[in-house]
Amino acid sequence: MFQKILIANRGEIAVRIIRACQELNIKTVAVYSTADKDALHMQLADEAVCIGPSKANESYLNIHNILSAAVLTGAEAIHPGFGFLSENSTFAAMCEEVNVAFIGPKKEVIDQMGNKSNARDMMKKADVPVVPGSDHAITDFKDVKAMVDEIGMPVIIKAVAGGGGKGMRMVFDEKDLEAKFLQAQSESKAAFDDDRMYVERIITPAKHIEVQILADHYGHVIHLGERDCSLQRNHQKILEEAPSPTLSEETRERICQSAVEAAVTVGYENAGTIEFLVDTDENFYFMEMNTRIQVEHPITEMITAVDIVKEQIRIASGERLSISQEDVTLTGHAIECRINAENPLFNFAPSPGSIDFLNIPSGGLGLRVDTAMFAGSVIPPHYDAMVAKVITHGNTRDEAVNKMNRALNEMVIEGIQTNLDFHIDLLRDEHFRDGRYTTDTLSGVIIPDWLKRKEANG
Amino acid sequence: MFQKILIANRGEIAVRIIRACQELNIKTVAVYSTADKDALHMQLADEAVCIGPSKANESYLNIHNILSAAVLTGAEAIHPGFGFLSENSTFAAMCEEVNVAFIGPKKEVIDQMGNKSNARDMMKKADVPVVPGSDHAITDFKDVKAMVDEIGMPVIIKAVAGGGGKGMRMVFDEKDLEAKFLQAQSESKAAFDDDRMYVERIITPAKHIEVQILADHYGHVIHLGERDCSLQRNHQKILEEAPSPTLSEETRERICQSAVEAAVTVGYENAGTIEFLVDTDENFYFMEMNTRIQVEHPITEMITAVDIVKEQIRIASGERLSISQEDVTLTGHAIECRINAENPLFNFAPSPGSIDFLNIPSGGLGLRVDTAMFAGSVIPPHYDAMVAKVITHGNTRDEAVNKMNRALNEMVIEGIQTNLDFHIDLLRDEHFRDGRYTTDTLSGVIIPDWLKRKEANG
Repeated sequence: MFQKILIANRGEIAVRIIRACQELNIKTVAVYSTADKDALHMQLADEAVCIGPSKANESYLNIHNILSAAVLTGAEAIHPGFGFLSENSTFAAMCEEVNVAFIGPKKEVIDQMGNKSNARDMMKKADVPVVPGSDHAITDFKDVKAMVDEIGMPVIIKAVAGGGGKGMRMVFDEKDLEAKFLQAQSESKAAFDDDRMYVERIITPAKHIEVQILADHYGHVIHLGERDCSLQRNHQKILEEAPSPTLSEETRERICQSAVEAAVTVGYENAGTIEFLVDTDENFYFMEMNTRIQVEHPITEMITAVDIVKEQIRIASGERLSISQEDVTLTGHAIECRINAENPLFNFAPSPGSIDFLNIPSGGLGLRVDTAMFAGSVIPPHYDAMVAKVITHGNTRDEAVNKMNRALNEMVIEGIQTNLDFHIDLLRDEHFRDGRYTTDTLSGVIIPDWLKRKEANG
Repeated sequence: MFQKILIANRGEIAVRIIRACQELNIKTVAVYSTADKDALHMQLADEAVCIGPSKANESYLNIHNILSAAVLTGAEAIHPGFGFLSENSTFAAMCEEVNVAFIGPKKEVIDQMGNKSNARDMMKKADVPVVPGSDHAITDFKDVKAMVDEIGMPVIIKAVAGGGGKGMRMVFDEKDLEAKFLQAQSESKAAFDDDRMYVERIITPAKHIEVQILADHYGHVIHLGERDCSLQRNHQKILEEAPSPTLSEETRERICQSAVEAAVTVGYENAGTIEFLVDTDENFYFMEMNTRIQVEHPITEMITAVDIVKEQIRIASGERLSISQEDVTLTGHAIECRINAENPLFNFAPSPGSIDFLNIPSGGLGLRVDTAMFAGSVIPPHYDAMVAKVITHGNTRDEAVNKMNRALNEMVIEGIQTNLDFHIDLLRDEHFRDGRYTTDTLSGVIIPDWLKRKEANG
């Protein structure tokens, strides 16, 4: 087992990883930017190294400085957390070069799954359903037409060279198909001098269901059940739950099995997540694989009692998975609310600043708050705006929801705007309550309704 | 289900009960003495009623004021917590008279189990082993001699009318038996004008093992496994764990079954605990029954996922137990450290006062802190000195211990003296580590050794 690990991250995930290391009797090295000089992660670690100024590009994304810190402090491994360098295969490769273990999958796998087209090919090889669409570039409309006849409507047309929405069109009515294809293609031609296009079915309405995977160095792959992360705003997850409140037992079994097969096929190692879209008939389609720990991992920990971060460390150190699939039982229901420094009344605009007063709810059975905040701590404007993850676990979904309601009502955060009240209202929303929400529901229904009610109440 | 419950207690247990009520959508009424006018329990409750001055006799033990508060606020039930009026059958009877449900067993059962001689008779009826000794008063030495020939040495001689140690002698050497008996008897005669004595075997060395019971109104009784509470100083528990680190599976099964039989025999209702002494050969002997929730209930909750306080409320409202014995599985290992405002270096003298700064550890899997403290809150000198209960749960005992070590090292309490550092050292103590400690170990070995080390380190 490693003696010392450097944590190449900040905020609550850095704190989460440091705590896991402490519980495994592993020394820790924190890295921090000048904006984080009083942050909890640097206070809790055994050693802390400043790696640059506030801007992430010059600190938390500064591979050279982070590797120097690892070498100088004698860290044997680096945990990248999520975001920043966690899915950067160059970083993983350079860790290898300086003989420091990267706590994650092999660099080739990061590359492979980071490339949409490669990932899609691998999934087909693993017999995992992918979103119906063109496997190869299309330039002629007649091929688009043939594709749509095969896969059905609605579809998205995307430039192979595309980016930032350029050369992209959503088509909901087939009579618009030709016009929109030609628009997208000429836009791509103009912008990228490339007229190659993809066509893909739009799966809507759909749930975002993801499966947590653990895989060791010896080909042992298990899943820890699924998470329902459909409550999203601009692709940002807001509230997640495990298990999904609506997925049938049969689909759960199939989707988890598909995820395991996918991980086996790509030769995956460490913790990873396979994200699927699930339509109203419970057909599921591979979306992408995240080759790292995820923000919402605690809900899976609560229902499985498996500490995913500790497993990551054990796997990277060469240990075998400590549990087999038969040992994994899903118990009860867990929910996570992401409390962010943002103002829901002003289009969820970030609200960085200093926390003057903080009360973190605690006590009782099945409540967990993962946070790096304390009274007096500062949310810098340079990074994400997450204040805390409040996680509850109950024997039933209702119990988990009631517990969350109790916890959020005890929580006090003064000095910055947060989405705390929005979350309390969300717990009461009928679309949340019935569990059948999809990826469109939050932005399409829940938030507009909420804003209307807020306006009506002055 | 009740609509409104009054909590006749203070501190963390009052907060614990209020949170359980909130999670069950039940309104709460707090009562408080003037010393607790800013306490968390009165802040968290929906309503709060002042029931008298600081002295417990005039407030938390003031039956009249508490019942008036219940009637005035329309509370349908009273949860007594632990201590104060929780085992007072007069209070239970008076609740009944004003038509307020007492969340606990029937008053007759409180009485019966509160009387040592009655409790012993009931246990014999239930075939539960009791400490060998005289069932009836003895006045002649020849009967003492006969008893000792039957039950063996060492023994304790106690005056029937005794109290405060008067008329009591421990006898470890049989040659002292007659002299000590006569001393004790004449002391009793002088103090109480009563020469009736009991003789009882002293079980030593022994573990304090207790079994958590839940029983509903319909004769359904289950156990939730045992707790090892042997680490005691002056009969005050300091650290508890569940399950016991040393009890054999066979003894666990037998002792839990005995506890269930005891509860059935006395017609027990609600949550209760049966305390046993277990000798080194794993013979066990009934000690007493606590007819209320206990301080250390969270460790049982952690390994069973049963919320005991919620079950208490459901049972008192007439619901059937929501789980059967087959539903109860003991998962992993849990530990509770009682953090008290006291100075271990000065004979654990209470250290009331104001908390200037407080950091409650949080985050990660399997950590729970039950407390009523916040930065700025005050530990009044009038009541017990408990600051917080830190509870950890791991898949193994080692994991729970490592988690506790991590949590306690994160905890900061400034402004008062506490036993926090003592607890951190206790986790490293070899006698704690090997798990074979008995009720004598803390005061007899661990504390003296600890003081010696402290002295050596200046």
